[in-house]
Amino acid sequence: MADHHALSMDAVDCPALAALRWDEPPEGPVIVLLDQRRLPSQEVELVCTDVPALVEAIRTLAVRGAPLLGIAGAYGVVLAAVRGFDADEAAGMLAGARPTAVNLAYGVRRALAAYHRAVDGGLSAERAAKAALAEARALHREDAEASERMAAHGLALLEELVPGGGYQLLTHCNTGALVSGGEGTAFAVAAAAHRAGQLRRLWVDETRPLLQGARLTAYEASRAGMAYTLLADNAAGSLFSSGEVDAVLIGADRVTADGSVANKVGSYPLAVLARYHHVPFVVVAPSTTLDFGTADGSGVEVEQRPGQEVTDFAVPGEAGTVASVPVAPVGTQVYNPAFDVTPPELVTAIVTENGVVSPVTKVGLAQLCARSRSGNGMMSI
Amino acid sequence: MADHHALSMDAVDCPALAALRWDEPPEGPVIVLLDQRRLPSQEVELVCTDVPALVEAIRTLAVRGAPLLGIAGAYGVVLAAVRGFDADEAAGMLAGARPTAVNLAYGVRRALAAYHRAVDGGLSAERAAKAALAEARALHREDAEASERMAAHGLALLEELVPGGGYQLLTHCNTGALVSGGEGTAFAVAAAAHRAGQLRRLWVDETRPLLQGARLTAYEASRAGMAYTLLADNAAGSLFSSGEVDAVLIGADRVTADGSVANKVGSYPLAVLARYHHVPFVVVAPSTTLDFGTADGSGVEVEQRPGQEVTDFAVPGEAGTVASVPVAPVGTQVYNPAFDVTPPELVTAIVTENGVVSPVTKVGLAQLCARSRSGNGMMSI
Repeated sequence: MADHHALSMDAVDCPALAALRWDEPPEGPVIVLLDQRRLPSQEVELVCTDVPALVEAIRTLAVRGAPLLGIAGAYGVVLAAVRGFDADEAAGMLAGARPTAVNLAYGVRRALAAYHRAVDGGLSAERAAKAALAEARALHREDAEASERMAAHGLALLEELVPGGGYQLLTHCNTGALVSGGEGTAFAVAAAAHRAGQLRRLWVDETRPLLQGARLTAYEASRAGMAYTLLADNAAGSLFSSGEVDAVLIGADRVTADGSVANKVGSYPLAVLARYHHVPFVVVAPSTTLDFGTADGSGVEVEQRPGQEVTDFAVPGEAGTVASVPVAPVGTQVYNPAFDVTPPELVTAIVTENGVVSPVTKVGLAQLCARSRSGNGMMSI
Repeated sequence: MADHHALSMDAVDCPALAALRWDEPPEGPVIVLLDQRRLPSQEVELVCTDVPALVEAIRTLAVRGAPLLGIAGAYGVVLAAVRGFDADEAAGMLAGARPTAVNLAYGVRRALAAYHRAVDGGLSAERAAKAALAEARALHREDAEASERMAAHGLALLEELVPGGGYQLLTHCNTGALVSGGEGTAFAVAAAAHRAGQLRRLWVDETRPLLQGARLTAYEASRAGMAYTLLADNAAGSLFSSGEVDAVLIGADRVTADGSVANKVGSYPLAVLARYHHVPFVVVAPSTTLDFGTADGSGVEVEQRPGQEVTDFAVPGEAGTVASVPVAPVGTQVYNPAFDVTPPELVTAIVTENGVVSPVTKVGLAQLCARSRSGNGMMSI
């Protein structure tokens, strides 16, 4: 079951943005989500009291973003266990809500494994549920900590790359707290710069076709009190040529062994513009994004999304309903790749929670991975 | 007064697209416009029987595009004269409908001058109106001829630049019959390639924020039976990197003396991508676009358009009404330049009705202009 609570939009007394939280009111434990379908017009909390409600929220994109889905999946297993439902059945339902979301399945597995370890160790169902909750909270915390460390590494890198502070940063798509247990990836670096008093302006491109920049990143920047300006993706060129971009900060869906970066479509044109204008192009992504099993960008299969995302404009209505307004002739064929691939030679640096790789090379990435595995922690090469 | 006539959408027996025509039904002369506000969902003719109706159509963008506005203005003066109204008063109303549209004022002036020459020469008001009509038709014809010549020059250039035919051409914004007395500029070249059996695919980018590519160019390509594919502006990078663009064809709002090209925002990023991928970037524009009074791109003032074009999605309703759906937080600041400037070093060639300039240099442009003025006609340097 899901309830909706409208939140105050008053920025003065707004709490830190929580895309997802575990809560234990007197009526029993719940998962509380910020309903991302309603943003930016409405801030509505979606309270999930059972797994079917959470599955529906995942399916309909009320909650989205790779790391956040992992956290949602873990808490979902806990919710079932703590309310006396079958944890295995719940895990199956949750992992199947978005079958291709790797992180979702990972979070579900981690919480379920903790639950089974406890049961196998002779603990009661109640104690086992608490063990699963501890695991979900650990995952949540790890993700938040990774955000913090990426932000610190990224900020230090900016200080090197753009002497003098007062950064004008351009970002693409949505990489903040709405996709993460913490402050996100690229957005977390911009937020750290803002807190350090060094963010002159965050340029937010709208990120067609789904407008994650306009709908979500502008919302997060506004909530954080940043100086931000929205632009159509087409206007980035003018910004570069007038010298108003000091660095580009983007996230990544996947980084292959050679340092090729698969990310939301529109990232690669920004990389080419950045190179042409001698502006640093910085990728911020957790080490879980590194895919050493894929040699280079040519091995990345590019998902083609439905043409309707481009030919029709989705007008969000009440309670997650969507009306569709055509903006192109009926029957128009569409080229709508979900992401593009930027080759390593156009990437100035890759920032992870374990350090920074710059220049971006296969050897550099492998070394970062090896050193962080051996517990050597932070590095910058 | 304006009447609306719905047209058949049947592509099999569709007539050549006429964005504007002069007609003389038994009830009296009229100007018939294709109502561009309704495209691509509805093909509706707007029949203007008097100047106030035409002024309203111009103001509300039922008719738009620089050359076409000139033709509309000229026929508007004729409409007043032929129906016995004051031609000077009509001219003032028409030119004021969009005060910054240079071509509109130019067309109005030409028809009015022809009318006055006739009156001053002792002709009756009826004969003077006919003289004005002849002038409007001459302007219309000149524009159509310029389109034809640009198309021929452009096609010959493509044959040189992209040996082997079967072109995959990328275009931006709307440059076809909807902005012209003929087939337009860049689009006319693509149409000529199509007729020659040499167009493998026309890539149409949607052209945010106003979606002229999706709404209008896709419509024109569909009507012409071209193989065309629509894409979000962000997806152009992927097309280039997968080798699926043989040349970029765009129009121009203004070309300065050094060959800098001011055109719809998003043109410059395509020029940078084209250069990075060694793909020809070709500008097609009538010689009236050449502005020798402005030395270079730094002298072009870039118009900033309302932020609402980016923060809100305009949903067209019946009879030209528009509903607005917000897609960004209230109060979001927007960077929304109407166009950008591409420096001559990124432009492979400029195609005009008088010939082709390539490489694009100040001297080359001046020579083209001088030779065409001296009646030397076609040239290619």
